[in-house]
Amino acid sequence: MTRTIGVALLGLGNVGGGVVKLLEDNSAAIQARLGAAFEIRAIVVRDPAKQDRVIEIDRTRLTTDLEGVVKRADIDVVCELIGGTTLAKRAVLDAIAAGKHVVTANKALLAEHGAEIFSAAERASVDVYYEAAVCGGVPIIRVLREGLASDRIESLTGIVNGTSNYILTTMTETRRPFADILKEAQQLGYAESDPTLDIGGGDAAHKLAILVGLCFGRVDVTKIPTEGIDIVDPIDLEYADKFGYVIKPLVIARAHGEQVEARVHPTLIPRNWLLADVAGAKNAVYVQSYALGPSMYYGAGAGMLPTAMSVVSDLIDLGRNMAARAAGAGRVPTTAVTTRELMPLSEVRTRYYLRFGVADEPGVLGRLMTILGAHNVSISQVVQDTLGGLSGPAGGRPAGQDEPVWVIVLTHEAREGEVRAALSEIDRLPVVREKARLIRIAS
Amino acid sequence: MTRTIGVALLGLGNVGGGVVKLLEDNSAAIQARLGAAFEIRAIVVRDPAKQDRVIEIDRTRLTTDLEGVVKRADIDVVCELIGGTTLAKRAVLDAIAAGKHVVTANKALLAEHGAEIFSAAERASVDVYYEAAVCGGVPIIRVLREGLASDRIESLTGIVNGTSNYILTTMTETRRPFADILKEAQQLGYAESDPTLDIGGGDAAHKLAILVGLCFGRVDVTKIPTEGIDIVDPIDLEYADKFGYVIKPLVIARAHGEQVEARVHPTLIPRNWLLADVAGAKNAVYVQSYALGPSMYYGAGAGMLPTAMSVVSDLIDLGRNMAARAAGAGRVPTTAVTTRELMPLSEVRTRYYLRFGVADEPGVLGRLMTILGAHNVSISQVVQDTLGGLSGPAGGRPAGQDEPVWVIVLTHEAREGEVRAALSEIDRLPVVREKARLIRIAS
Repeated sequence: MTRTIGVALLGLGNVGGGVVKLLEDNSAAIQARLGAAFEIRAIVVRDPAKQDRVIEIDRTRLTTDLEGVVKRADIDVVCELIGGTTLAKRAVLDAIAAGKHVVTANKALLAEHGAEIFSAAERASVDVYYEAAVCGGVPIIRVLREGLASDRIESLTGIVNGTSNYILTTMTETRRPFADILKEAQQLGYAESDPTLDIGGGDAAHKLAILVGLCFGRVDVTKIPTEGIDIVDPIDLEYADKFGYVIKPLVIARAHGEQVEARVHPTLIPRNWLLADVAGAKNAVYVQSYALGPSMYYGAGAGMLPTAMSVVSDLIDLGRNMAARAAGAGRVPTTAVTTRELMPLSEVRTRYYLRFGVADEPGVLGRLMTILGAHNVSISQVVQDTLGGLSGPAGGRPAGQDEPVWVIVLTHEAREGEVRAALSEIDRLPVVREKARLIRIAS
Repeated sequence: MTRTIGVALLGLGNVGGGVVKLLEDNSAAIQARLGAAFEIRAIVVRDPAKQDRVIEIDRTRLTTDLEGVVKRADIDVVCELIGGTTLAKRAVLDAIAAGKHVVTANKALLAEHGAEIFSAAERASVDVYYEAAVCGGVPIIRVLREGLASDRIESLTGIVNGTSNYILTTMTETRRPFADILKEAQQLGYAESDPTLDIGGGDAAHKLAILVGLCFGRVDVTKIPTEGIDIVDPIDLEYADKFGYVIKPLVIARAHGEQVEARVHPTLIPRNWLLADVAGAKNAVYVQSYALGPSMYYGAGAGMLPTAMSVVSDLIDLGRNMAARAAGAGRVPTTAVTTRELMPLSEVRTRYYLRFGVADEPGVLGRLMTILGAHNVSISQVVQDTLGGLSGPAGGRPAGQDEPVWVIVLTHEAREGEVRAALSEIDRLPVVREKARLIRIAS
């Protein structure tokens, strides 16, 4: 007789619906490979009477009794798909305390309370799986935790927020301004009605904190320097293109001895990088490691079925562990996970794209260069665009009159603290018509 | 006290040396994460007196006693890094019979004798891991077996032979002929002195058979239609470029009900595909699956440390299983693996690039088109190059005189049997100066 594993779903939105569908569609294959079957024995929802579910569902399995379900004797695994960090946290900790394994897609929960949750799981000898929390269907957690388990990760560069990538890709293709594309993305359902977490970089910071936790050690997610894609104007995409770059919404992390550099911001990358071709809502993580060298993992970072796929793959892993009575088989002991200091952004060294809107007067360029030089910021390329014929804010020109021009500077690697000091000095010059725009360049 | 896992290495070439180095370099991290340490207790070599090993090694661990080592009580895991299918097969089966877990990087062994080896392992309740056998350091086996365990793979398109990819990439960049680049690659150590397995596609076919076995079921590797990259002339790269394509050494597999389509050949792919940017000796596998949609996995397909990295990650997985007394935890029961018929190449439907060298006479193009049409091969694009100004064989022109010209045809999707019938009819025309060249287009 086939062994049956009892599953509780907390939440029946898009991902929950996808899990139900995938378990039904692929049940024969899963049983054959696993020698066990999954049975969804309870689905916790806010309103069992609600119509218009993403899938047809047997209503007798719906319940509002969150507290009861996570402790029920016939439940082996709890899938937390509620989101948020209040209700979800209590439910996950209750499930763990009751000896249930947990699968979660909740990046905010793990980024903010991962240490507490993983310690609780270790004490209770249960497993917490979370492949769906980062990059949706891309199996990046497994790749880092198992595939590259013997390697030493040196750096990560990723596109982990599909909404931001969709908006920047469309801006690049159409040269239309950010606000227009965002509105369109919201109408198409690619962006939330409150898009702050996506376009502001907060969602990406959560995912980065989880990746950093796996590769380098735990960091305080609230301290990760985070910039949204709304700092990018169409004119920046145009200048980037002239210099051979595209602008992508990146997360970047790198080990520096005891410290970890981690940051979230739109970034110029050379057009011939593989990440430059990761378009639309797709995600990818480019990993640099000691033994393997560069490697990349690409796919759908969101969506009902891709995310549900990761949840169900986690269920299958748990099923194998349970068959082998091997809870914890895939777990890294929490004692092996160090807490790391984030490198202050002012200490980070990278390259910069700087855009200055200045009066078209003799000697202005020299003064900019002199100030940058005085702060040890050395210049790789400069363009002074007197024509102002490009589309962009203020009709391709800086605000203000007297025939203002854009000066675009690409720097060599410099310390961010010095660059910021130079910019604040430059911004105070009387010839400056618009505050300097800074976008980092991947290096 | 830290538990210690006894390892025997069979073979101390590049990969074996890499395993020794990686276990030494990363031993602290591995111990912390695994709670166990690996100890290499025996290394089987042909000649223990040999100097110039890839790494410094304590010679007391070297032995020639292959038969004895695989049965030794202090050995828990045998790493087979000998290569070949005779000695390696006996050693692996002996190790399994003696209750040892096995890690192997041997694609030929698994492609040809996988069924026998996996059945033996299942009977003996030991595990056989083989991440290093396909795409070196890219964790594609784990991704397919675990990351996408809940999904249904529809097709695979991969660049899995680094030597072929290096040669075609260099030909594309330099437009120099195949033989020159091959010679250079041999001098640089990128190609073996006998390059047949690499450039002829045999190595890729072995890897494809393993991937197909994981995704669709076991197939007879000797029956996989296989073409080498030596059919590609620089002029083909040039015409491909004109049409917006690059030529890549691909493996392709797709499920068709009970049958599996699997083939190995150089292929035209659109320049904007991600696989088009997989350059040099790098490998990548592009997967299309039901739930996740498209995903791609990219990295170093060969080399000492990348390949060793996969071997040591397998060791770590085995170490976790052993800690949990969970041999077989990650194994798909052999009963769940079906044997599949390969779809005959004549039944395969794809698109084609055809190059005809014909006399420059009126009506020739019409006759080609008529014959193709009569075989249900419909045409997407045609170019007749009367100038012959491109570099290539015979100075950019077909062999033979009377102002011969190249006719390049890109077809719509057609059945290969019909295309072949049309070509053999065309090749017999008196106006034909050179046999038709056929390269498939990915579709």
